[in-house]
Amino acid sequence: MSGNTFGKLFAVTNFGESHGPAIGCVIDGCPPGMTLSVTDIQPDLDRRRPGTSKFVTQRNEPDAVEILSGVYEGKTTGTPICLLIKNTDQRSKDYGNIVQTFRPGHADYTYYQKYGIRDPRGGGRSSARLTAPMVAAGAVAKKWLFEHYGTVFRGCMTQIGELPITFESWDFVPDNPFFAPIADVSALASYMEVLRKAGDSCGARIRVSASNVPVGLGEPLFDKLDADIAYAMMGINAVKGVEIGAGFASVAQHGSSHGDSLSPKGFKSNNAGGVLGGISSGQDLELSIAIKPTSSILTPRESIDMAGQSTEVITKGRHDPCVGIRATPIAEAMLALVVMDHALRQRAQCGDVTVNLKPIKASI
Amino acid sequence: MSGNTFGKLFAVTNFGESHGPAIGCVIDGCPPGMTLSVTDIQPDLDRRRPGTSKFVTQRNEPDAVEILSGVYEGKTTGTPICLLIKNTDQRSKDYGNIVQTFRPGHADYTYYQKYGIRDPRGGGRSSARLTAPMVAAGAVAKKWLFEHYGTVFRGCMTQIGELPITFESWDFVPDNPFFAPIADVSALASYMEVLRKAGDSCGARIRVSASNVPVGLGEPLFDKLDADIAYAMMGINAVKGVEIGAGFASVAQHGSSHGDSLSPKGFKSNNAGGVLGGISSGQDLELSIAIKPTSSILTPRESIDMAGQSTEVITKGRHDPCVGIRATPIAEAMLALVVMDHALRQRAQCGDVTVNLKPIKASI
Amino acid sequence: MSGNTFGKLFAVTNFGESHGPAIGCVIDGCPPGMTLSVTDIQPDLDRRRPGTSKFVTQRNEPDAVEILSGVYEGKTTGTPICLLIKNTDQRSKDYGNIVQTFRPGHADYTYYQKYGIRDPRGGGRSSARLTAPMVAAGAVAKKWLFEHYGTVFRGCMTQIGELPITFESWDFVPDNPFFAPIADVSALASYMEVLRKAGDSCGARIRVSASNVPVGLGEPLFDKLDADIAYAMMGINAVKGVEIGAGFASVAQHGSSHGDSLSPKGFKSNNAGGVLGGISSGQDLELSIAIKPTSSILTPRESIDMAGQSTEVITKGRHDPCVGIRATPIAEAMLALVVMDHALRQRAQCGDVTVNLKPIKASI
Amino acid sequence: MSGNTFGKLFAVTNFGESHGPAIGCVIDGCPPGMTLSVTDIQPDLDRRRPGTSKFVTQRNEPDAVEILSGVYEGKTTGTPICLLIKNTDQRSKDYGNIVQTFRPGHADYTYYQKYGIRDPRGGGRSSARLTAPMVAAGAVAKKWLFEHYGTVFRGCMTQIGELPITFESWDFVPDNPFFAPIADVSALASYMEVLRKAGDSCGARIRVSASNVPVGLGEPLFDKLDADIAYAMMGINAVKGVEIGAGFASVAQHGSSHGDSLSPKGFKSNNAGGVLGGISSGQDLELSIAIKPTSSILTPRESIDMAGQSTEVITKGRHDPCVGIRATPIAEAMLALVVMDHALRQRAQCGDVTVNLKPIKASI
Repeated sequence: MSGNTFGKLFAVTNFGESHGPAIGCVIDGCPPGMTLSVTDIQPDLDRRRPGTSKFVTQRNEPDAVEILSGVYEGKTTGTPICLLIKNTDQRSKDYGNIVQTFRPGHADYTYYQKYGIRDPRGGGRSSARLTAPMVAAGAVAKKWLFEHYGTVFRGCMTQIGELPITFESWDFVPDNPFFAPIADVSALASYMEVLRKAGDSCGARIRVSASNVPVGLGEPLFDKLDADIAYAMMGINAVKGVEIGAGFASVAQHGSSHGDSLSPKGFKSNNAGGVLGGISSGQDLELSIAIKPTSSILTPRESIDMAGQSTEVITKGRHDPCVGIRATPIAEAMLALVVMDHALRQRAQCGDVTVNLKPIKASI
Repeated sequence: MSGNTFGKLFAVTNFGESHGPAIGCVIDGCPPGMTLSVTDIQPDLDRRRPGTSKFVTQRNEPDAVEILSGVYEGKTTGTPICLLIKNTDQRSKDYGNIVQTFRPGHADYTYYQKYGIRDPRGGGRSSARLTAPMVAAGAVAKKWLFEHYGTVFRGCMTQIGELPITFESWDFVPDNPFFAPIADVSALASYMEVLRKAGDSCGARIRVSASNVPVGLGEPLFDKLDADIAYAMMGINAVKGVEIGAGFASVAQHGSSHGDSLSPKGFKSNNAGGVLGGISSGQDLELSIAIKPTSSILTPRESIDMAGQSTEVITKGRHDPCVGIRATPIAEAMLALVVMDHALRQRAQCGDVTVNLKPIKASI
Repeated sequence: MSGNTFGKLFAVTNFGESHGPAIGCVIDGCPPGMTLSVTDIQPDLDRRRPGTSKFVTQRNEPDAVEILSGVYEGKTTGTPICLLIKNTDQRSKDYGNIVQTFRPGHADYTYYQKYGIRDPRGGGRSSARLTAPMVAAGAVAKKWLFEHYGTVFRGCMTQIGELPITFESWDFVPDNPFFAPIADVSALASYMEVLRKAGDSCGARIRVSASNVPVGLGEPLFDKLDADIAYAMMGINAVKGVEIGAGFASVAQHGSSHGDSLSPKGFKSNNAGGVLGGISSGQDLELSIAIKPTSSILTPRESIDMAGQSTEVITKGRHDPCVGIRATPIAEAMLALVVMDHALRQRAQCGDVTVNLKPIKASI
Repeated sequence: MSGNTFGKLFAVTNFGESHGPAIGCVIDGCPPGMTLSVTDIQPDLDRRRPGTSKFVTQRNEPDAVEILSGVYEGKTTGTPICLLIKNTDQRSKDYGNIVQTFRPGHADYTYYQKYGIRDPRGGGRSSARLTAPMVAAGAVAKKWLFEHYGTVFRGCMTQIGELPITFESWDFVPDNPFFAPIADVSALASYMEVLRKAGDSCGARIRVSASNVPVGLGEPLFDKLDADIAYAMMGINAVKGVEIGAGFASVAQHGSSHGDSLSPKGFKSNNAGGVLGGISSGQDLELSIAIKPTSSILTPRESIDMAGQSTEVITKGRHDPCVGIRATPIAEAMLALVVMDHALRQRAQCGDVTVNLKPIKASI
């Protein structure tokens, strides 16, 4: 109820602070009998890891995951899986100068108002570092979904600051530090370099996609698949907008073109983004998120201190000049967690249903 | 778990189908001692009601609400409040011709795949008619929040199809059938008239706002206030996108301008939309949603039938040419339900917290 | 969260007060495709109904159930099933004289302290009348479980006041107003007659049983099948104790005799009551509950009034001299709801598990 | 949903297996601002710890607790508190001979049927060792409740095997290894010595009590305080029965004596056990639980093996001859967790209620 558990049947409880001894999560509801080891989880953590390029925070953490429970002789047992990631590079002194002030656009103001406590250690609980356990849990969900349905999750950056990025191919994504689906990222690198030197930050737009999603996932009236996706995405640090399928572009569309035509071979377009009436249609899930610029920047900003008096804030320490860069594996993981949860829910409620209509899984 | 309950501490369980005997909801968790009668609820239902102009469905329902439980001698008792709305104008025969086909962009395809059942009566459970009980429940939440914090919820249309609507004043909203914040809606009426005669439909963009929201609402890491808002909004029929504050525009912003400066008198802008780190800041909540065009249209569309064969679909019957028109009171109600739930959650967890810093409630 | 929903995957939300316009429930999570009509539900309601003998309250209610949603063309649709029972015999004036006092052993004292409100109409929400919707929901669960697993639920009275009742046969239960498993109930009738004339009341002990329960139901560590059964039973009005299997007798047993031996043909005893480690073993579920004497009696009792001053209370009106008599169908229904919920949960989490060991379903 | 989280507003998620690397829990919902350190928690863990007398298992574990998150500068932050207990004495080979058989009365049969997996390491997840994290979480709840309401939790043994133990004083409880409220435990020691040498085990009856419980805790219709207590108690390993107040004795009572009289000075008896209509009355909470004999014993028992064939089972290894002995601190902790959860729930829903009637907190 205090908002640290994600999901209902595949429930992930997250704990830890940015600069405490450890962060981690407990996955409750993973079906028994799936082979699982750290090698299934570590690669996704490595994709999210800080310190891998000059465009992300220089905090250097191995983010090595340990499995404390729920796996016996290499297989899940159906009991809770505790995943632990020790914090190893906490330079708390870096944050010393911001304890008495509030950073514009940062959670320190609202956390203090809510809890009456100020934890300056890297943002404490509000740090994006807490997405690491979700990436780990997402890797478990991805594995189960791939084994059962062949579901594949992918994400890429489609805009950074003012620069739109025109999709070329998924193949390019792993080859550059921006998760950009393009061959040549030199323009992105130059843009970021200027920004970084100016002590400023920028936003990003991320696309996330899932293929081979079973038809029938999602609960009306609430817990619609797209509603749960919106919840998951908006819950990622710094996200300010979520679109499914045609998204905001659908405002200017007409019904005669928006609704995706069906033929015996499949849907002929995907304005729906894979969801109709809150339930997956078997088409690819397609969504986009907007990520705001990092609020912790070197540029001086007008603010107030703990006494409510005017002051100026400069945030030193190690920060991502564009938090959106590392958001791609996070958004993929969150999408996988939503789909996993609904796959189990569907099994519970409609395990009996046999529909003779062949699901139309792919766009033509 | 099957997705028919909204909220955790102020939990609204929704039931009914578009053309069954009745629709309604049970509100569990309303605090005791608040005066409540149907006159507190009916006005919001009337704002959402069909048949009030030629721009919405001609289905004519009084949508008269009855309170079956939870109120004694005019006051809430703390026990469940059951609100019932009888269906009185169900012309099921209008839908007879679409039983054997799937409408592009409509939930009938996915409902059939999920449940193995086809309920053609006005969309059955997938009908937007099921938002009526939520509007009723939202009216209860609005009353409690206004009495405790002075919170006020407002919504308006900011775009219809290709036509952007420039905000003039909240005062104009009740005076036109579009919930448009402008004095002269003749251009909107002409646009809709052309569309309606062409048997087509269009999308809309709705802005929703809340003032006098207490600071400190929202739970990290999940159940962030904005995450729950996104969940609530994306769960409204036909919504394809949600933005908080600057939303997708924040992608192209820089940190040096996006983060809202603080001064002793208040925040100097509201790019955050009233939420920092998932917790309300005391500023106005500001959000926008994208609503897709109605999928039930007279224009013929390519589709398949229950046997998976090619066919053409024309949807007769009574439908809104722009479902977005009636979405404004719905979106207000859903926002009120989210804020109400978090107000009770905050009381549970942080009832003790006394922060000496004066909350900054308003923008300058 | 306010405690009016029972179950997680087969979730029943209860509403209403004893003397309001109606009581009822919403069942969320019933799988689609099951045939269902009021004739499946009414018989169990009739077994619980008041006014059927001189040993129960003379309040005369038909308790006729209506299905408002969730069923289309005679089959469940997978959407919420709202069941409504109108109140027809509310003689509120009977209770007029107790509004200003607190009955010893009654909930009126604690309800007033908790909610700050006094609803004297037949106990308002605390009335045992609110078990009627649960009996209705239980009938739906029983039907599904019987169709899927052949599960059968039975209950009987095994003690009334000081009189133990030695089990003879389930066959006798429907033939007497006590739900007693004996041929001759004249002793019970005489006992009750004396008590009733004296304006007093007594307790009862009820046994409940379920056969053909699937093996594997129940979740460790919490939500154990027996823990959820205890929760369900202790939640029935006036219940003060719950035993599973050997229950309190197991305190004086030794390990060498308590643990039920297994042979290739089956378990050789059932001290466990059908549950091992919180998970059903396939043996019959066996449990007993203790029901306290009715607190609303004609015998004068020492108490206090709303001002906290000494007073004497006599409860007129229509009350059951032994609330335990009508508890049998209620306890069966609650057990069915628990088993149903766990059957769906098991399907979600362990739908894949195939164990080659043949389940041992019955005792030898 | 898979049953590893206890509580709703003060939610404790438990993880680990008896012989894995570690066990622990995550507490979500602890209010911020309470001082907390391991010294608040360790004493209760030490009371539950194995290896402290010859009457309990000789497994020797320090059960040292670590706080991994949720506490900053000695105070709770309102974020999840992860408590970790490393396993240090796992002699798995002790269990080698029972892997292929099922122990009568043990969970190994049902776990295998449910999950398709056999974890022989000390019972894996079904081990009573998993109560240690609950004792730790209970210590946190106890501290908060004591600081806010002066609530005190106590437990003692009232019967061991065939020997009833007549209550003398709470003062004696800490002075003997049985948690017995009597000065001279030599008879108990002799009884256990005989049993232990015979390779057998016995049951126990435990009383648990809470004083200074706020009035008004508990939710009707479900989540009644006593229903949640029953759920918590029946969920403890080996518990087969739960009684509140007069419990099963109330069956033979009459209404004229069972209902606790009220006077201006207080209640005159406590048959209710501190709960009326599911809501705390302010009287002491009083309950009893029945614990079955340990199923892992040296006495040979008839059983079957994994192939379903007849066999004989002898359980070597280290086991408690009476698991009830160490149950006292566990039952106290579980009761504290229930009361804590309801204290927060009450604050959420009825934080406004002001009743002028002075609560009657104690029996006369």
